[in-house]
This record gives sequence, C-alpha cells and structure tokens, in this order.
Amino acid sequence: MNTFGRIFRVSLFGESHGSTIGIIIDGCPPGIPLTEEDFTADLQRRKSGVTGTTPRIEEDRPILASGIFQGYTTGAPLTILFQNQNTHSEDYSRFVSTPRPGHADFTGNQKFKGFNDPRGGGHFSGRITLTLVAAGVIAKKILAPTNIQSSILEIGGKTEWNKILEEAIADKDSLGGIVECWITGVPAGWGEPFFDSIESNLAHILFAIPAIKGVEFGSGFAAARMKGSEHNDRILNAEGKTVTQNAGGINGGISNGNDLIFRVAIKPTSSIGIPQQTFNFQIGKTEILEVTGRHDACIALRIPPVIEAAAAIALADFKLLYC
Amino acid sequence: MNTFGRIFRVSLFGESHGSTIGIIIDGCPPGIPLTEEDFTADLQRRKSGVTGTTPRIEEDRPILASGIFQGYTTGAPLTILFQNQNTHSEDYSRFVSTPRPGHADFTGNQKFKGFNDPRGGGHFSGRITLTLVAAGVIAKKILAPTNIQSSILEIGGKTEWNKILEEAIADKDSLGGIVECWITGVPAGWGEPFFDSIESNLAHILFAIPAIKGVEFGSGFAAARMKGSEHNDRILNAEGKTVTQNAGGINGGISNGNDLIFRVAIKPTSSIGIPQQTFNFQIGKTEILEVTGRHDACIALRIPPVIEAAAAIALADFKLLYC
Amino acid sequence: MNTFGRIFRVSLFGESHGSTIGIIIDGCPPGIPLTEEDFTADLQRRKSGVTGTTPRIEEDRPILASGIFQGYTTGAPLTILFQNQNTHSEDYSRFVSTPRPGHADFTGNQKFKGFNDPRGGGHFSGRITLTLVAAGVIAKKILAPTNIQSSILEIGGKTEWNKILEEAIADKDSLGGIVECWITGVPAGWGEPFFDSIESNLAHILFAIPAIKGVEFGSGFAAARMKGSEHNDRILNAEGKTVTQNAGGINGGISNGNDLIFRVAIKPTSSIGIPQQTFNFQIGKTEILEVTGRHDACIALRIPPVIEAAAAIALADFKLLYC
Amino acid sequence: MNTFGRIFRVSLFGESHGSTIGIIIDGCPPGIPLTEEDFTADLQRRKSGVTGTTPRIEEDRPILASGIFQGYTTGAPLTILFQNQNTHSEDYSRFVSTPRPGHADFTGNQKFKGFNDPRGGGHFSGRITLTLVAAGVIAKKILAPTNIQSSILEIGGKTEWNKILEEAIADKDSLGGIVECWITGVPAGWGEPFFDSIESNLAHILFAIPAIKGVEFGSGFAAARMKGSEHNDRILNAEGKTVTQNAGGINGGISNGNDLIFRVAIKPTSSIGIPQQTFNFQIGKTEILEVTGRHDACIALRIPPVIEAAAAIALADFKLLYC
Repeated sequence: MNTFGRIFRVSLFGESHGSTIGIIIDGCPPGIPLTEEDFTADLQRRKSGVTGTTPRIEEDRPILASGIFQGYTTGAPLTILFQNQNTHSEDYSRFVSTPRPGHADFTGNQKFKGFNDPRGGGHFSGRITLTLVAAGVIAKKILAPTNIQSSILEIGGKTEWNKILEEAIADKDSLGGIVECWITGVPAGWGEPFFDSIESNLAHILFAIPAIKGVEFGSGFAAARMKGSEHNDRILNAEGKTVTQNAGGINGGISNGNDLIFRVAIKPTSSIGIPQQTFNFQIGKTEILEVTGRHDACIALRIPPVIEAAAAIALADFKLLYC
Repeated sequence: MNTFGRIFRVSLFGESHGSTIGIIIDGCPPGIPLTEEDFTADLQRRKSGVTGTTPRIEEDRPILASGIFQGYTTGAPLTILFQNQNTHSEDYSRFVSTPRPGHADFTGNQKFKGFNDPRGGGHFSGRITLTLVAAGVIAKKILAPTNIQSSILEIGGKTEWNKILEEAIADKDSLGGIVECWITGVPAGWGEPFFDSIESNLAHILFAIPAIKGVEFGSGFAAARMKGSEHNDRILNAEGKTVTQNAGGINGGISNGNDLIFRVAIKPTSSIGIPQQTFNFQIGKTEILEVTGRHDACIALRIPPVIEAAAAIALADFKLLYC
Repeated sequence: MNTFGRIFRVSLFGESHGSTIGIIIDGCPPGIPLTEEDFTADLQRRKSGVTGTTPRIEEDRPILASGIFQGYTTGAPLTILFQNQNTHSEDYSRFVSTPRPGHADFTGNQKFKGFNDPRGGGHFSGRITLTLVAAGVIAKKILAPTNIQSSILEIGGKTEWNKILEEAIADKDSLGGIVECWITGVPAGWGEPFFDSIESNLAHILFAIPAIKGVEFGSGFAAARMKGSEHNDRILNAEGKTVTQNAGGINGGISNGNDLIFRVAIKPTSSIGIPQQTFNFQIGKTEILEVTGRHDACIALRIPPVIEAAAAIALADFKLLYC
Repeated sequence: MNTFGRIFRVSLFGESHGSTIGIIIDGCPPGIPLTEEDFTADLQRRKSGVTGTTPRIEEDRPILASGIFQGYTTGAPLTILFQNQNTHSEDYSRFVSTPRPGHADFTGNQKFKGFNDPRGGGHFSGRITLTLVAAGVIAKKILAPTNIQSSILEIGGKTEWNKILEEAIADKDSLGGIVECWITGVPAGWGEPFFDSIESNLAHILFAIPAIKGVEFGSGFAAARMKGSEHNDRILNAEGKTVTQNAGGINGGISNGNDLIFRVAIKPTSSIGIPQQTFNFQIGKTEILEVTGRHDACIALRIPPVIEAAAAIALADFKLLYC
C-alpha cells in the first residue's frame, strides 16, 4: 500500500541509512523533456543548510534509472534513485529498546515485529520525502501552466520567527509551523463527489508526509466559526470566479475554477537534545533519554517543496484522469 | 472512484431525490449477526428533528438486499438500500442556471457537462451520508471492542450554542461547528508509513463527507505552535501508554496503542434563507437568489454519527487487513 | 474485491434466490442516452428458453436506480437492479452437507465458514451474470463504433450440435462448448506492457464468469505448435493491418489495430440429473446424490452475450483511460 | 498500472538495454530470512545457456536495495535491482521505422507516440521477467509449504523436441511450447467468486508475461468437449479430495483443496533470422526485414521459472489476504 494515485502512480521505497532510496512513477506520459537539472531547484529548496536544519548534508543527485530515452520520458515506468552517502548509523541502535518520544521507534517495532530498520528512522525517515520532491518535479511539468506555491505562514506561532528559532536551537528544543499552499490555474471540474474529492486526495497524500498533523482547506477551522452568510463565496462571473475564497476553491469535492488554498500544521521535530523521559522496554522501566543524532530543529523550514510535490502528484493524477 | 477501502470496501450510490440510495460493502466477513434493528440507533442519531435541522423527515428504513442469510452476513457483497420518500423536486430546477453559493451546483454542472441531477443536490447531497452511517454500523461490529465516540465541541464558535443557533434560525442564516472523535481500543501497529498512514486514510474518508473543511489529529494545528519538549508524548509503560495525547495516538502513521483523537471542522450549511448574490449563467449576469428549499440551519448537529461511521469504515479496513 | 476496472468500474452483488441482484457502474460518463429498452436485446439473448436451457424464466427487467436523469446518464454512479421472482429455494438446502460435484457448494462453505447462502448457488450463481450483461450494454455504447460479436464455435466438440444436445438432455447429462469473440474497431495503442496488458484484463474478467476454464488469444494454444515464420503476422500497411491474425490483434499487451480475437472454453454445466457420487460431510461418507433442481443442459448456449459484456466492460475501461 | 496484487504488491520497471531493471515489493511481511543466494537457483533456471537460448549472457546478480536489515525482511518496501551489462544497442534502432513482425515495435510506438525506448524491446523485453523471478523467490518463501512446479509439456508440438529444436535453429526459425504448472498444498477456500477468482488472478499475471497467448485450468479447452458426467470431479473425503482433476482445483473461483493445475501456451519467439516482410513506415511501403539481434530460438525453454514466479506472486497475495 505504498503507492499513491490512479493514473499517475508513485511507489516509494528506501531507508534513511540504506544504500538507495527511490520512487517509481507509473503512468507518466511519454514525451516530457526531462534532465537531471530539472530536479535541482526543488531538491535544493528541500535541502538542509539554513539555520534550524540538520547538519546531515547529502548530495541528492537524482539517477534516472528507467523510463527515459534521449532526454524524454518514454511512457514506461520512470524510476528515480538516490544514493545515501552521509550516514552515521551507530547513532540509532539503542532506540530499539528505548524509543524516542514522538518518533515511530515504538510503533515501527510493534508493526514490524522487531525487524524494522532502526537506523535514522529507517523507512519512516523524513529523508524519504526526497523521492516525493523528485516525483513532484515531473508532476509539476504535467500540470503546467497550473502553478503551485507554498510558503511558511508561521513558525512556533510567530510570523517573524528568527528569534524564537535561535532560542529553540540554543535550548536544544524544536519548533513546529504552518505552511500555506496556493494553486492557480486548476480548471473547474476536477475531483469527484465523496471518496475521490479533491480534499480527500490532497489530504491523503499530505498526511503521508511525516510531521503533518492537520490539514484545512479555504477558511478551514475558521469556517466552523462563521455563518453561512459570511462563508458562502459569491459567484461573480461565467468562469465561476468568487469574491472570497472560503471554500478553498472546492465545492462538493470538485474544483470551482478559483485558486485552491490549503494549510498544513507541522508538529515540532520529535528529535530534541533535551533529556526526555521514555520507557526502556528491555529493562521494563521509565528512563531518561538523551538524543544526540543529527536533526532539524524545525522541519517545517524544509517542508514547503514537499507540500508542493505532494499536491502536484495528487493534481497531476486528476489532470491525467480528465484531460 | 466511488469506492473506499482495500478489504472492507464500500461503494455508495444514489441521489437526494432519486428513488433509491444505497451502499455495497465488499469484504464483509461471514457470520456477523445482523438485523434491521442494529441500524436503528445510529440512523436515528443522524435524523433531523431537533432545532436547527431540516423539516424533511425520511423513514430511513434499511433494506438488506444481499449478503445476508438467516440473520448472518454471508461473506458475499452486502447491499443496503434505502427508498427516498419525502422529495419535493420542484424546489431545485432553477439552480442549474443560477447556482447557489457554497453548493456544488456550479461544479457539478461543470464536471458532468450539464447532465447532473440537480434535484436536492443530486448525488452531492448530504442525504447520501445515510448510506455511510449504515455501513458504519457493520464496521463498528467488526471493530468491537474498539469504541468510537464523537461529540460536538462547538457550534458557531460557542460551547453552549442554544442561543446563537436560535438567532441563526431566526435570521435564516446557518452555523458551522467542530466535532471531536475519540477512539479507544485500537492496538499499537495499525497503519502504514507514508501513503497508508492512519491519518491519510481517516482524512481521506472524512473529507469525503460534505461540509468538512478541516481535519486535525491530536493537538493538530495547536501542535504547530508548540515546542518539541511540550509536544512529545512521554512513553509510560510497556503498552506504550503516554502521559499526553498530542500525537492523537499515531506516530509515523501507525497507531501507538493510545486513544486515537481527531477533530473536524464543519462549515456552515450553504443553504440559507437570506437573499444572496450569485451569477445567472443563462442571462450572463449577477443576480440575487433566494433559496427556499428545506435545509438544516446547522448540519454539524447531525454529523457526529457520520464521522463515527467514516472512522469505523476506515479502521475496520485496517483491522481486517491485519487481524 | 468484487469490483473490476480502473475508470469504468463495476461492482456486482446479489444471490440467485435473494430479493435483488444488481451492479453499480462507477465512472460512467455523463450524457449517454439510456432507457430500459436499450437492455432488451442483450438480456433477451442471455435468457433461457431454447432447447438445452433452464426452465426457470425470469422477467429480467432492469431498474435504473441511480445515475440517470431525464433519460441520460448523469456521471454519478449508475445502479441497475433486478428483482428475482421465480425462485424455488427448497431445492438447495441439502447441498450444504452433500455438495454437488463441480459446483461451489464445498468451496463456498469452506470460504464463508458455513454462512454462505446455499439457495440456487447463492452469490456464485450464473444468474449474477445478468448484471454483467446489463453493464455491458452501457459499455458497448461507450465503445461504439467498436463492435463486439461472439458466437458459439462448437458444443460438445461438434460444430453442428443439435443431435448431441438432445441426447445429452435425454440422458440428463450436460455439454460444454467453445465461444469465439471478434472485436472490430479497436485502434492501435490500447493496453499496457505487463500487468495491464489487454490479454491480462480480458482474461481477468472472462475467468470471472462461472464455467469458463480456458482463454486463448489469436491462434492461442495452436501458436505453441507453430514456427515463428508461420506465426508472425506480416504488417501490410501504415495502419498496421496484418495478413494473418495469429496474435489476436495484440502485441506486447497492446492492441495493434487489427481485430481482437479470443476464444473461451466453457465446461459442461455441473448440475446434471444423473446420480453422482459425492461426500456427505454430515455423516462422513461418500453417497450417491441426485440433483433435481432446474438447470441448463448447456450453459454455453447462453454465454455469448455474457462474453461480449465482459469484453465490453474491459475495453470501455481502456477507452475511457486513453480517449 | 504497472503494479500487481492487493497485499503482496509488485511494481516492476526497466528496459532491456537500460542501466537498471528492478521490482518493488510492497506488503512483504517482516522477518523473512533473505540473502542473495536465495535467488540463485531460480535466476539460474531462467538464464540462457542451453541450446535454443540467446547468446546474451547477463550476470543477473540481485541487489537488495531496500526492505532488508541484518538478513531479514523489515516489512518496509523491498526493492531488488539488477544492472544490465551485456547490451548491444546498435542492433535495434532501425526497428522504429521498420517494426519486426510479432514484436511490440509497432504497438509500442503507437502507444508511446514515438518516445518508446526501442533498444532490445525496451520495457517490453522479456528481460524484465527477471524481476518477476526475483519477486517470485520471496513469494515462494511466503507460500511454503505450498509448492509450485512447472515443466515443459511440449515444444513445437512434440514431447521430445531435441530434433525439431535443432532444425529450427539451423533454419533460423523459432518454436513455441506448452508449459504445465502444478501447485500442491493450497488449502480450500482461497479466491473469491467473480472478479477475484483464482483463475482471474492467475490468468491476469500469466498473460502479463510476454509470449503467452493461452491459459487453461484443469482440463481447460478439453472440458468444452466433455459431458458433465465426465467432467465433474467426484468428492472423496472430508478434505474435499477428488478422484479426477478436471476443475484444476478450483470451483466457483475458489480453491477446493486439490492441486491447482494450469497450462499456458507460449508462442514461438518473434525474432527469427529468416527474412520477413514488414512495412517501412518511413518510406511508406512493404519491405523485407532481416533481424540479426541476439534472441532465443525457443523462449518457452526459459519460461518455467517465470510461470512459477507469476503463480507464486498471485498466490502469496491470496495467502497474505486470508492467513
């Protein structure tokens, strides 16, 4: 069940400290020009490097392993591989018995009966979102001229967050954030009533991204505090343009020709340097755990290109389904 | 794409003012005792009748059309039908040219190229959620002793809402609300990393319910404003119980053995009696529309059993997948 | 898993002696004119009545329960129901303990743990193919001008079979047969390499039809006895037309613009009036069983419209996927 | 649509002359011991080398790129890669304009609008079946003690085929064949009525294998020439064992506890050294084509392990679904 999509279908694989991570894209149309350079911008935006991100630096060079011939997609399954290089696996082995709070150490062990790869979070790692960003590059090409832009609305509850970010780093703590995404150029009529609504599909892939704990469309949770007379978006013209954007561009699960708008809530990174109480399953009692591995103080800083990629994958699937 | 689930698969159909609405459940295990009476409680909770709900009253008697023999499920596809009886279709025909703001009148016409059934919202109607509630009754039986309870947290932004609800009714306006759902008894280990996370699946089906515009797990959007040291749920014992519930019972997409907790934002009912500006596509200009059909002033009042049913359907699918 | 298709998706339900059988079609395009009369010809071809078919006569009147408005498909899920009327359920109860050879009595009980509806074969009954024929009527409309024609090649190994059929009836025995299907007007380029080849999809749905035990494309099993120089179809012109049809119109899983040709092997009806040895699971020993229920001496006689419907459903799905 | 399975899901990719081919297995249970050596036997059986097989020799060393940790499957997606090494791509470029009869050159170009990778058949190549065999190794481990054995029944219509094979090689011609597969140890109750019958699933994946043009279960096409009194398998004991195996171990789409038996027809290799007439799409007329690339005179010789792998993949999926 590691596949998303109906026509444009992505299947991802790999572990944080394994040799190779990758993604297969099935249903990619033939004839799309594609080079390694096309991936540079979005992969670069996702990379760590700025204040508040992990010291683990990876080259993140995409290997186009199948589905490409003479610079164009062929229509056959398109595979993109990445080699992991900067791995320090000794950091992680003890988390099998002493799971880190907030991480998938405990749940991964429960699910996979102790056979889970614990190194760097294994398959649960945010590192795997690299493959989503790669697939998103192709999805964006398919969607053009539809345009997807996401930006950070707030970090730690602030719209100007430099100071609290530096405090959090100094405190060995972490911060969450909210990212907003605007999508222009989606025509009216994409999506389905009920199970394949635009909201259902976008939320499905957005909640697949580690650390995301909330998704809202248009005025979202604020809508619950509005009256119908305030919330209803008045239709202005024959293209269906509305004065306000409370519906986030979606009525009855279907795009209405206005911009799609949604926001996601990103929890603070679970890895923090502050000692935390957890349970030692080997000796059967609570203990204090100090996490020393490399991590992002604020993963939200690196998430916008992942959000865009996820949205692009979901929408490219709709476009190929209808157009 | 009107199907949800991998093992416990539901496919719904019907229109608000058509003769019959229904749901097929594929993958229902054999040997579950089932009678019409089993449906009474949840169908009754979804019914209108209290202040703020529609004057359209339907009998909502489930017809078990297949998959049942001598009072037990057989394992073959189980079909539940309902006959619509209280329909006033003359109310709706003009909304084809003059779509109601907030409704799917415009998007439905765009999508279905003018062949959409406009009567009572057609297939987009909240009436179809009746079939979800029916399927949820069976899903809850499969899930037992896992227990799902939802309740209204606020209506129109208030935790005591009688007064503003009566005001909204008097004003011919409508209100939204927030519903919270608690699920006890889900063992650790359900869900998958990435595309089949618990959050992805729950959000997928929740956003299929008309009027839902936001979904958050655990502390949700509030998590974005917390520090990691506040948000991380400390693990207390060998069952994985945690002191706090900020993760909503889910780490890495997988249940951690604590209660699952989520909240949904429900927009105010789009149908209001107040005259609204919209666009008349026939004559090509804006005009004032007065909606006189029957509707709920606050659909959130009737949504808790629908939320529970949706969650039950998604979780029964996980249970049958693993257990 | 009672659903077939990716875009044009059919989900069927019902039992031979239940009240209602039916099919939901998801993904049917809007705007297709559709009336009850459109179903008459193919439903009539499937009906019993001629020599060698069952004395059970059903009206087989299709009820268009959803997805239709003012004579056109709406794009919402389209549901077709049939009421069973001519049922004699007392005939079947003893087959729970004493399964009929060749039938699904034993396997159904194993699978469904004794909760299976045994009446008339329950959900396993060939009666359910009525719903496939109904869905096929719509699929054929979508496919036009692509044309699907099937005919009986042989019954009981003979191309003129009247005499052996009357002998089999007189002997209370049954006969199998071979049906061939020719499909004209499929353009080159439908199908996918590997798992979604035309052959894979057609065979999938054909083997879903009770009694079918073999499927071959083009020269099929005879191809295994040919040389490459004999089997290769020489390409004649820019449309890809070939001199011979050994590939059955499919290369690499993809249509080549020639007619699609396949044949199916239909086993003799399992129900025969001749006493047969079987096992009585209640008393734990072999015993002689005499089957007295109503049945077809040669089900192959009624299968051509079912074959066509199955092929039409699979191909309509491809057409909607690509066109 | 390059994925097969519901629980044990395989997605394959790659081209005959690309750098890498591979397969992702999703839904593989954790804790299965797995080493490179486990693949040796089946990969070796598929290899060329004996009389009548291609001179292209590849090392076929499996690279376990994800889903493995310390010698055991982890439960995360398991990826197996192979590097292509012995490629002569200059052989193939002219087949874009002058398609080889029997190959997917024409259909691939039609489907993929001229962007298809023509080298060695690209993604259509039988080389990709290497990845199926690799996935089959794991599927067989999951299925144990269920045992799958296939063998060649006939080549070119003969059960002793050395002489005609050498003649075909001398004539630069090719031969087809028939392979039979016996599967022991499948318990009664696997499979579903209708669309997920055992026959439907096995046939689906079998017809995904290049060169297979017919599939039959039990007595198959011969059943069409039998009487019911001959064909019905008499049940002998409480395990459901039958005297004969005409049903191939499947009734109503569900395993009956006897051996599963099926046969596949394999067409003669399309590549032959004899000059053949085809159409030159560039100059617009028929011409004589001489194919000089490396190929198998009889691909059927190498197909038994591919057949077994395909069957294992389909049945492992059923086992994980039910057990």
